[in-house]
Amino acid sequence: MNIVLASASPRRRELLEQIGLSFSVRPAASEPSVCGLSPEQTVCAVALAKAEDVALAASPEELILGADTLVYLDGEPLGKPSDTEHAVSMLRRLSGREHDVYTGVALVGGGRKLVRCERTVVRFRPLTEDLIRRYAATGEPLDKAGAYGIQGRGCLLVESIHGDYNNVVGLPLGLLRDMLESFGVPVL
Amino acid sequence: MNIVLASASPRRRELLEQIGLSFSVRPAASEPSVCGLSPEQTVCAVALAKAEDVALAASPEELILGADTLVYLDGEPLGKPSDTEHAVSMLRRLSGREHDVYTGVALVGGGRKLVRCERTVVRFRPLTEDLIRRYAATGEPLDKAGAYGIQGRGCLLVESIHGDYNNVVGLPLGLLRDMLESFGVPVL
Repeated sequence: MNIVLASASPRRRELLEQIGLSFSVRPAASEPSVCGLSPEQTVCAVALAKAEDVALAASPEELILGADTLVYLDGEPLGKPSDTEHAVSMLRRLSGREHDVYTGVALVGGGRKLVRCERTVVRFRPLTEDLIRRYAATGEPLDKAGAYGIQGRGCLLVESIHGDYNNVVGLPLGLLRDMLESFGVPVL
Repeated sequence: MNIVLASASPRRRELLEQIGLSFSVRPAASEPSVCGLSPEQTVCAVALAKAEDVALAASPEELILGADTLVYLDGEPLGKPSDTEHAVSMLRRLSGREHDVYTGVALVGGGRKLVRCERTVVRFRPLTEDLIRRYAATGEPLDKAGAYGIQGRGCLLVESIHGDYNNVVGLPLGLLRDMLESFGVPVL
């Protein structure tokens, strides 16, 4: 089966390349907004909706991969910041504390669908106002959920993680491998 | 001060680039072998020896960065495998269990030296013999301590980590940032 990544994220593309997968990219046209669901249910629902959107116009030998990543603090989702000041206020809230990163992964193809979710706990270092402002000024936070990119300079804000690292980047590769195997697509 | 990386590791180079550091590369000519020390003492001693080796011929405005990473299982270091069969036997031992990764980081320059160490716990998935053989066949394990590279396909073998991810890749960037700051070199 030919894998199609239903995401425009360059980070997800790099992660699939890291494990040597062949794939094409066809981002979903729309992203649903859901509310009233748990973090796990939310990322699973959005990942599945993205994959199903692309699957509508896919060919039978294509396997569509949808994913959605959310950062939760105190049970509340932190999306992408709207501007630098918004990024600064998010980073202040994350400073010195743990938060959760959830990614939902959906595979749709061959008449089947499969959705799963992974959670990683991230602990931030205590951040000075100066460091927060310098990081925000790099522009890196602006297109990232939670206002940081762990695969960039944002790693300097992180004290430790507990769980799957790539899940924080945007795609839990170990989980994805198991899911692909159940579709008869071997990885490695 | 001008940072000089006393390591030939392409992974350490990439990590320094990730945080936007300017640096040059000048690998240490020799690597000491130490024995009878704890994991922390071992990586610190080797990191410092590498930095001091390069510092001998350095100019006064240079700050030398040495690092050493070791994988420990049951209190015993796992070095780089000598061949594919050796890699297979290391991976069999790591399967389904936790091990520790230690990196020592040394800075030498301006009449000062500073050495510190970081530990990350890595838990491997339970690996089938087939998966181990397929991973070993990629050749990726051969130049890696512990026979895997978490930043490559080796991530598929890892269930979770607890601690700093970049420490497992070869350089704990958060710790390095604190150390550089104490030398008056701001990062970020």
